[in-house]
Formats: sequence, structure tokens, C-alpha cells
Amino acid sequence: MTTPSLLRADEGMWMPQQIPELAARLKALGFTGDPKSFADLTGQPMGAIVSLGGCTASFVSPDGLIVTNHHCVTGPLQFNSTPQKNLLLDGYLAKTRAEELSGGPTARVFVTTSVTEVTKEITGNIDPKSTDRERFELIERRIKERVSACEKTGQRCTVASFFEGHKYFEISQLEIRDARLVYAPTADIGTFGGETDNWRWPRHTGDWSYLRAYVAPDGKPAPFAKENVPYKPKHWLQVSAAGLKENDLVFVVGYPGRTQRYQTYSEVKETTDWSMPLSIRLAEEQIALLEKLTKGNRDLAIKAAARVRGLNNGLTNQKGMLEGLVKGGALALKESREKELVAWINADPARKQKYGDVLGAMAALQAEAEKTRERNSALAGLSGASSYLAAAQSLYRLANERPKPDMEREAGFQERDWVRIKEGQERTQRTLDPTLDRGLLRWAMIRAAALPKDQRIEPLDGLAGLKPEMSKADAEKAVDAYLDGLYAGTRMGDLAFRMNLFEMSKEDCGASDDAFMKLAIALHPVTEANREAMKNRQGAYLRLRPRYMEAVLAKAGGLAAPDANSTLRVTYGQVKSVAAKDGLVWTPFTTLRGVVAKHTGEGEFNVPEREREAVKALRAGKTTPYLDAGLKDVPVNFLSTVDTTGGNSGSPTLNARGELVGLLFDGTYETVASNYLFDPILTRSIHVDARYMLWTMSEVEGAANLLRELGIK
Amino acid sequence: MTTPSLLRADEGMWMPQQIPELAARLKALGFTGDPKSFADLTGQPMGAIVSLGGCTASFVSPDGLIVTNHHCVTGPLQFNSTPQKNLLLDGYLAKTRAEELSGGPTARVFVTTSVTEVTKEITGNIDPKSTDRERFELIERRIKERVSACEKTGQRCTVASFFEGHKYFEISQLEIRDARLVYAPTADIGTFGGETDNWRWPRHTGDWSYLRAYVAPDGKPAPFAKENVPYKPKHWLQVSAAGLKENDLVFVVGYPGRTQRYQTYSEVKETTDWSMPLSIRLAEEQIALLEKLTKGNRDLAIKAAARVRGLNNGLTNQKGMLEGLVKGGALALKESREKELVAWINADPARKQKYGDVLGAMAALQAEAEKTRERNSALAGLSGASSYLAAAQSLYRLANERPKPDMEREAGFQERDWVRIKEGQERTQRTLDPTLDRGLLRWAMIRAAALPKDQRIEPLDGLAGLKPEMSKADAEKAVDAYLDGLYAGTRMGDLAFRMNLFEMSKEDCGASDDAFMKLAIALHPVTEANREAMKNRQGAYLRLRPRYMEAVLAKAGGLAAPDANSTLRVTYGQVKSVAAKDGLVWTPFTTLRGVVAKHTGEGEFNVPEREREAVKALRAGKTTPYLDAGLKDVPVNFLSTVDTTGGNSGSPTLNARGELVGLLFDGTYETVASNYLFDPILTRSIHVDARYMLWTMSEVEGAANLLRELGIK
Repeated sequence: MTTPSLLRADEGMWMPQQIPELAARLKALGFTGDPKSFADLTGQPMGAIVSLGGCTASFVSPDGLIVTNHHCVTGPLQFNSTPQKNLLLDGYLAKTRAEELSGGPTARVFVTTSVTEVTKEITGNIDPKSTDRERFELIERRIKERVSACEKTGQRCTVASFFEGHKYFEISQLEIRDARLVYAPTADIGTFGGETDNWRWPRHTGDWSYLRAYVAPDGKPAPFAKENVPYKPKHWLQVSAAGLKENDLVFVVGYPGRTQRYQTYSEVKETTDWSMPLSIRLAEEQIALLEKLTKGNRDLAIKAAARVRGLNNGLTNQKGMLEGLVKGGALALKESREKELVAWINADPARKQKYGDVLGAMAALQAEAEKTRERNSALAGLSGASSYLAAAQSLYRLANERPKPDMEREAGFQERDWVRIKEGQERTQRTLDPTLDRGLLRWAMIRAAALPKDQRIEPLDGLAGLKPEMSKADAEKAVDAYLDGLYAGTRMGDLAFRMNLFEMSKEDCGASDDAFMKLAIALHPVTEANREAMKNRQGAYLRLRPRYMEAVLAKAGGLAAPDANSTLRVTYGQVKSVAAKDGLVWTPFTTLRGVVAKHTGEGEFNVPEREREAVKALRAGKTTPYLDAGLKDVPVNFLSTVDTTGGNSGSPTLNARGELVGLLFDGTYETVASNYLFDPILTRSIHVDARYMLWTMSEVEGAANLLRELGIK
Repeated sequence: MTTPSLLRADEGMWMPQQIPELAARLKALGFTGDPKSFADLTGQPMGAIVSLGGCTASFVSPDGLIVTNHHCVTGPLQFNSTPQKNLLLDGYLAKTRAEELSGGPTARVFVTTSVTEVTKEITGNIDPKSTDRERFELIERRIKERVSACEKTGQRCTVASFFEGHKYFEISQLEIRDARLVYAPTADIGTFGGETDNWRWPRHTGDWSYLRAYVAPDGKPAPFAKENVPYKPKHWLQVSAAGLKENDLVFVVGYPGRTQRYQTYSEVKETTDWSMPLSIRLAEEQIALLEKLTKGNRDLAIKAAARVRGLNNGLTNQKGMLEGLVKGGALALKESREKELVAWINADPARKQKYGDVLGAMAALQAEAEKTRERNSALAGLSGASSYLAAAQSLYRLANERPKPDMEREAGFQERDWVRIKEGQERTQRTLDPTLDRGLLRWAMIRAAALPKDQRIEPLDGLAGLKPEMSKADAEKAVDAYLDGLYAGTRMGDLAFRMNLFEMSKEDCGASDDAFMKLAIALHPVTEANREAMKNRQGAYLRLRPRYMEAVLAKAGGLAAPDANSTLRVTYGQVKSVAAKDGLVWTPFTTLRGVVAKHTGEGEFNVPEREREAVKALRAGKTTPYLDAGLKDVPVNFLSTVDTTGGNSGSPTLNARGELVGLLFDGTYETVASNYLFDPILTRSIHVDARYMLWTMSEVEGAANLLRELGIK
């Protein structure tokens, strides 16, 4: 049994250096190790944790073997798939090093090597009389200069803002560019339960996969090449079959993407009133459209798979957030907390002087941006829909930026970004298809056609003959006619053509007769004006948000974790059941019993025959070290109170000894609103139990080579 | 906490007279009352329990007020509905006695007054050399004679078989014929959750309603008449707000319809292999058809409502049974238990001599019947689909039986049945519609058209021009042509016409030019031959099944409950959570929190605004005696381990003091296979908590008049 003080989950995706300050709390939860070990990024276990860019992973052998989620290797699986052989469905197992497959040109493994506070360097000595725009430019320039200096060492560097610009840290990472696919289970295990079970409990997903990091023979990062050799990490995690039980302490180390817990009430309100309902509608429309476009066409379906998966995932996530915020009462709680903050500020003349104007000023900025939100959302929707358009826009912007000195180029278009942009175009080619692209762009343009009179995308109106308040049928006719010419007059779907454009000047672009380049150039003044407005607004926020945050932190007192920002974090919690709904309690472990019970033989719930046979053998008395004595079965997934979000996917779950006992791969539906306001009662993360992974590798998949490499007897 | 011995549910829908034998077990569960009180049918509480024919109910006031489930008054609600005013949706509350509405001509309240064992009288002194058919006729005659003698007292009597004909009991009941609708909540409360939540937990359904029994001024049962007066029962239940908590002992008294726990393995196997999959398919087809036929037509939809509800309910139930039997392993357990029985019989020469042939002989009977099961199911399907045909067949059979002496008439067509048959025709009229009838009969005939060559319904083939192996399109064409003539040439949809037919002789029927009467007469030889075969088979079963049962009981030893057979039973159990699925536990109570959480504002999940307002008032601090201190909310539904089945609906849930603390209204999905094999781990019944009923009546519905009558302060 837990003591009452341990019944609530602890909020916090902590920066590694904050962990030592939590020593007392960790001790109360049963931690006997040294909390300082988490602060040493080059030690054990932190040195073993890596980012894949969007997912987390960890080294689990001295030969650069990496474990992450199945859903984090969609790219490599897609890269190696053909209409005849779909690794997304079939999975893959390399029995030898030679069989390990390139993860594709954009596969990356980032190893964080240092984190240094640079707040003063970024925000110090700014003339208080400078304009917002000057402030923006100065801070951006300081960041670029730091990054440039840092990257002279050959590392990949970023300067990240923490606590809404209240603090800045410079992060240096080793960027490994040859990550190979070693093993992913069949989708019937790796994505078992599919969209139906996504964000849900009880869960039975075998969401693991393995990559291996390769470097050039000289030990330096290099793109995929035959002669590359496995990377030798200084630290790797020991995968353990020791298992967990309810109330056990666990840590999750990883790269959570983005939380918004320090947004103002009116910002969250805009999200629930406008952004989320809109994004739900757009996702539903796109999913329906993609289903229609790919129906009965296996090749197209593979190309659209990752997008559909992402849309579905986001859809459920957004719906859950909206429910939690509105129906679950998080929004109302946010409002009342902000009222308390305002009252606290106003209660003291000095505080009022210091912070009294901040919320009002931020609200004014927000109100200004809201005036053109429909148009800007529809404008972004065009390049979001069409990879052809996105490529043309990206290449045209590059042509605009290239002539400038590197430090004056826009972030994302500096020399350091060029390789990434090129690789992105190569990756895009894998999923590019004119039918899909045109279908999606048509949908996005019809949306733009319906914009209100005062928020038109004028160049688009001009090119496609769209008018405010025209009928949907007329708009469709106009769009179809325009698209006929657009796709007939472009080679933007051709990778070699796009690669050539990397060399073109702004003038070359202007002279190009490619229809998509013409569209990109026509839209350029609008996107450029938007960027200008955004920079002015950003400059104002750079002035206001740190003060807002200072007030929030001062009122809260004590230790607080910053919002997630894709940097390395540590969260701790306990394996724990939850009274998730009226009339039921979710118990912390699922087992093989539940896998078999969900088996229908089709779709998302098809347990492979070899797994069902292995369960039968287990029931018939075959022994396995992965059986849990209490559950009398092999545990499959488990719940814990750790505080995670997207980006944490694939993060190792560590026990109190720092061993890998599971992989974080999801959160419960009732949890997702915690991105805006942490719910200490309902929040649960979902992990795959290492014992299920090991049992499957041993009894179902015949992955003896990998088990040996993991040091499993 | 429970002690381990109390963790398993107790099997048993006990006959009231068996309860005293369970005294020790009841004491262990905390019962301090006198178990003998349950054996006295005319005492407290048993005298308060009544049957509505298909549902259970109980008197709850000295003025004949009756409480039962909302879903048990569908008939009365439908009887009082019009296209303008749909009480099935709106509910109804009589504020005065004068506003109480007739429940319709077929509404009944049966009060069981005596149960007498008559095994010897029914099965004694049968010549062992008599044929199966002679045995059948003799037993049927003895039963008829007893019923006839018993009914001379003015009561309604039945002789029911227990333990597969091992025992017989004569049951005498007072039959009240004027049952009025007093109160039913809106469907948004009474059927909240609809088909989605049916058989499911967590549940939030306010499944209660009130009737009142009326009798003639002289105190005798009489049909609805203005001058009738409320019936004064000798016993009624005290409705209590004392509430329950987990592990509390509860009793459920009622009229469970039918269980098959003593079926043989091969009988259950036929059910899972053939009957259930068939009945699932037929229900799905009918539901789809009825949805198509009633789409956009409110009047038709009301007429089809009860049928659709019944089909959906049965569908979920059958699916659950099939899952529990096949996937849940109940069938395999049944097989192994029967193997043990056979081994036990064969282990002793005397037993082998006595029982050795029984299972084989029963299997042979079953195999014989299976030869024509497709045809017989399709044949029954015709009258199941068409009320026109069912009426014509019933009236023609009556014409055939009427000339015989009453004792020689078929059961169901004796003089005592005539009123019921007439009333049935009146009730049928409420839901009769030629479009629905024709649509369903068409579907049933197309099914019959597809029968295999050796199982044809020949008269139907002849009339409609159907042939074995004809294409579906041809069959549809032939059926449509035949139905054109059938419905053009009939007045069977006219109640007065049908009532006239009650007077007609067999010859009059033969001379009738009504197309449905012609069809009924044409089918008569086939149905008659089936009845003959069934009587022969029944005679054999009457010889075999009691011996089979004797062996089962002898092997089991000790006390056992007979299968449910729509007679009065008592079951006991505890309020209890259940680990229903891998990874979750259902906790025993739901609350208002869950009602509000399920509110979507539409369809099956629309919480009435006045209820939402009442919840708001409660949250704002309004006090209520119906709050549970532990749950900090008003309990809505709860789970217990009592052993119930269809027919128990509306049964009072009694606490250890015999007070009404809830109403039984459903079982969980995982429970339904218990009809074939009781599952002591998963079985849970679902009750509505009296506190939810009282809170709603008080805070939402303004039913102060009824609360006063219940003696609630």
C-alpha cells in the first residue's frame, strides 16, 4: 500500500541538473542511488540516452545497438518497403550485421554531450529602449552566433529557451548519420490494437524496435556507407528482466517535445475555442480524403501510411485534450489560477509595478494575431497539404537567403541547414505521389477559397480565379481547372529536378516556367509579410514573457520544471493503478491473457499464430524467466505516473538501479490535457514491459542474436 | 476486506423452500434474519414479489403501487403513445390516481400464492412398457387436469417441470388484469446509455418505473374499468435509502426465465456451432431491415421500437454467450465435466446399469432433430416475421382445437387460453403495420427460398413458385409477386376481422378467401407433422432426462438449484468489484459524476437539463439524504454477485433486513454465458441503486406524491 502523500503523481519533466534538488522526494519514493548521477550527461545512465529527432532511444550494447519504439522507426521501415514487401506490416529482423538496413538519408541519432546556461549571453545588456523588432533581431543574432561558434567543434548545437525565455541553455550534440534498421516486430505485435487502442488502456502493444548507430571507420559521424562501423558508445543501459510491481519507483529519461503549461488562460482558451476544433475538423477531413484516394491501391496506401497514422494519432490526442480541458475542467482551473495570479500581483504595489501590465499586453498581442488567424492557417495549410508546394517554397526561400552572409540568413536556411534540407527532399520522395499531392492541395485550396472577405490570400485568388463568397461548386471548378495546369506544368515531383533547384538564384527561380515555382513566388510576399509581423510580435513576447514567467515562478515559489522543449529531461513516478472513470479502476499491468483475449484474427487485433502458439506452450507449462510471479503471466504493458509527452516515445523506463525495465510509448487519453495543465490524479504514462519484449524476442521471434548482445542469458 | 472463501460468487437461483437449507452459508455472509421467511410465499418479503409475465416487480405500498424496470413497461408506454406524444421517449408521471393510465389489455400482475410438489401425481404409476408417445400424452393430460382443477378456485395455475422433469411443482397465482402506468422517467434517464451500454459496465441507467394494480370494487381481478380500485396487497416492501457498500449481502427475488445449465455437452455444442451464430445473423439482418423500413418515419419507428430493442438486446446477449462459451472456455469446461460424469457412471456397474445408456440415447434424439433443423427454423421464422401469418395460423389452430373436449385440446388452445389469445391480438394491433409486416415476411421467405433441396417447405414452394437452388434474384422476384397478391388479398391486418375469425369453424376457415388464411392452411400439415415428431421426441426425453438429471445430481451430491423456468426464485450474493478484463477492475458503484461525464447532449447519452441542474445544485452544496459518504456522491448503479437471468428484470434487490435497496436490471457481458455454465469469478448482475431512484424522483422529477406513498420522508 502507498502512503497518502504518495498517491498523487509528481509534475515535472525536469532538467537533468535539477534532479539533485529532488533528492528528498526521491528518497521518500524509495530511491537509494545518487541523484547527482542524472546531472552528469556524460555518465551512466544519461550518456546512454539519445534522440532520434522526434523520438527518444537508448544504447543497449557496447556495439551501438539502440532500442526505441516501433512507431519511431516508421521512416526506416517505409524507406525499405516496396509494394511487394511492406516492412511496415511485416517487420524485419537482421540475423547478422550484414543484414542491417540503412534507415534512409534522414535517419539520425543525437547524443547530447553538454548543456550550458547562456541566459546572460543571450538576454544580457539589451538596451531597454530598443524596439521589439530590434530585440528580436539581437537575440536571434546572438543565438546564431553561439550556435555557429559551438558547431565549429563538429557537433550539432542549439540554443533553447526555457521558462518562456526566462532562461537559455546551449545544447551540444553528437549527430550520428548512419542509423540502421536491426529489428522491428510485425505490425501485429508492434502496433497491436492500432488506432482503436491508441492512447487507451488496457493496452497490449509490443511497441519496440532496434536500430544500430554506425560511424565512419575513423569514428566520426558520416552518412550511410558500406565501410562504416558500429558506433561504440561510452555508456549503454543494461536491459533487465527483473520487472516491476505496483508502486515501484521508475524514471523516464528522454526528449519530451512540447508542453504549454505556462500559457495564459486566454491563450489556452483560444486553443479550445478555435485551434483544437479546427485542427480536429481538418484532420478528420484529411483522413477521409486519404482513405478515399488510397482505397484499393496498396502502393498509394504505403505512401500515405505515415501521414494517416500521424493524423489519427493527433486527432485522438486533440480530442482528448479538448475533453480534458473543457469537460474535465482543466480550463476552468487554469482560469481560476490566473485570477489568483492577478490578485497576487495586484496585492502588492511593487509587484503591481513590476508585472501589472504583462497579461494585458500579452492579450493585446494575441488579439492582434487573431485578426488574420483564418487566413494564416489556410495559407500554412497549402504547403502542409502539398509537398510540391512546400518544396518550391523552401527552395525559393533558400535562393533568397543564399546571397546573404551566413549570420544574416534566416534560422533554418543557414549553411548548417542545407544538408538537412536536401535530405528532407530525398525523404519526401519516398511518399511523394501526384495523385495524393493534388488531392490534398485541392482540399486545402477549397478551404482557402472559403476564407472571409477580409482575410483572403490574394495571390491565390488571382492565380486560381477564386472570389470571396463564391459557391463551393464554383470554387471546386476553378480549383480543378487551376490544378490541371499546375500539375501539368511542373517537374516538382522529380527529385533530380528539385536537387538542381538548390543551385538556382532568386533570379533563376523567377525565370523558371515551373508552375509550382510560379505559385511559390506569387505567395512569397504574403508569407514574407507574415514573417515580418511574427518577428515584431516575437520581439514583444521576448520582452513580456520572461516577466510573466518571473511572476508565475515567484508566486509558485520553490522548484519548478520548465515546459518541454525537445531537450533532455528526467521524470520520475511510480507504477500505479488509476480510477480513470466512474465505476472502474485500471490496474497497472496487462498480460498475455489480454493479448489473446483481444485476438480477432483480423485488422488491428490479429495476434500472430507463432505468438499464440508460444502462449499455448507457456500455458502448457513451458518455463520462462519473464513470468511475473504475482500476475502468474508475462506482463505486456504497464502504467506509471511519470510525466511525459510526445517526443518521449521510445524513452527507456529505468528502475531504481538505472536498468532498462520498459519503454515509454504512450499516455492515457485522460492524460493528454496535462500538456496544458498537469493532472496529478489521472495522469498515467503507458510503457511496454521489458519482459514482454524479451519473451517475444525469445519465444516468438527467434532473435537470439540480439538477446545475446543485450547480455540476456 | 472479504475473506478468501467469500471471493467466489455462489451459483443458484434457489426455489424459496430451499433457502432454509442455506442458513449456514447466509450466516457466514452476515445474514442475521430468519432464512425460513423466504420459504413462506404469503409472508414478508415473498408476498410482495410479483410477476408481470416476463419481468419481475414488487409491491411497495399498501395501495398496490408496484416498482419494476423502465424496460419492463415498454408495452404500457407504447400502448399510450401516439405519433404526437411518444411516452417511450418522454416518460410519464401521474400526479394523481386519476391520471394513472391503463397499461393495455394484456398488462398483467401475477401474485404467486402457493407452490406444491406434484412429482408423484405427474410422473407416478407410468407403465414402463408405454411408448414415448403414450408417456407424453399421459403426462400432458395429467398436467392439464391438475391445472384445470386448480383453476376452479379462480387462480391462474401452472405445473412446472424442475430438474429436467425430475420434479414437478404446481404453482397457483392471482392474476390481476388492470395494471396502470403510474410513472416512468424520460428515456434519457430510463434507458440512458441505450444499446451502447446494454450489458455493459460502467453503467448509469435509471431503469425504474411504477405501475399500480387495480381490481374490481369487490376485490376480484377484472379487466381495466373506470370503477376499479387499487389492489390492497397483504405485503409490500419498504423502499430504503440506507444504501449498500462493497461486500454487503443482497438478495434478489424474482422470476428468472430460462437457464440451460443442465444441458448436455452436445446440446450446448449445437448451440454454439449452429443456433447462436444463426440467431446472431438473423437478428443483424432484421435490425438492418427494420432500420431501412422505418427510416424517417416516426410512426413506423414507434411501431418497430420494441422489436428493435428486443433484437438488439438479444443480439448482444447471444454474442456475449458465444464469446463466453467458446473463447471464455465454458464449452471446454462443460465437455470435461461431462467426461467426468461418464467416467463416474462407468466406474460402478450399478450406476452403469442405471445411467449408462442415457447420454447416448439423448444424443441420438438430438441427431434426428438436427436433420430438419434448417427447415424448421425457417418455418418458424415465417410466423416470427409476420404477425399477419402468425394470427392466421393461431386462429386456424384454434378452429381445429375448438370442437374437441377441453382436456383434449392442445396446451395453449384450451378455454383458459382463449382470453389471452384474444388479448394478444389486441396487443398485436398496436405494432401492426403492413409495410413492416411485408418487409419482414419477404426477408423470411427469401431465407426459406434458400433452404437445401432435402429440407424444403413444400407448400410454400408451391404457392410462391420457389425452387431449390434458384438464384436470389429469381427468388426475390417470385416472392415479391406472391406477396403482392398476399397482402392485396387479406384483411388480416384488421382487428375486427381477426376477432370475427375467433368464431369460425375449421370449415369456415377452409372456405375463407383471405390470402393469409389460405397460406396458414397450406402450411398446417407441415407444422402439424412437426408437432407430432416433437411429441414423440418429448416423450422420449420425459423418459431420459430425469434419469440423466438423477445421475448429475447424485454425482454432484448435496444441495443444487434447478434451472430457471420462470418460477419464483431467490438468489443471494454480495456487492462486489470484478477484475473483468486484463488490466482493469470494475468497481462496484457508479455515481452521478459518471452520468455527467457520459453526457454528450445527443442520442443515447443525453442527460436531461433538469438532471444536470440538479447535479450542479448538489455540487454547489445542496444536501440530500441519498449521498453516499464513502463515494461522496449519489450512487447510480451497482454490481453484485447474485445469480440472475432474463425475467429477473425489475426484481427488487433486498438488503439483509429485507428492504428494497435497488432493482436488478441487467448482467455484465462477461456473465451471460453463465446461462449455460455458471462462472463464479466473473458473474456480476447490475442493479440500479434505490438512492439514485429516490434522488431523481425528489430532485429531478418532482414525484413527491410517490415518495410520500413510499413512506420516504
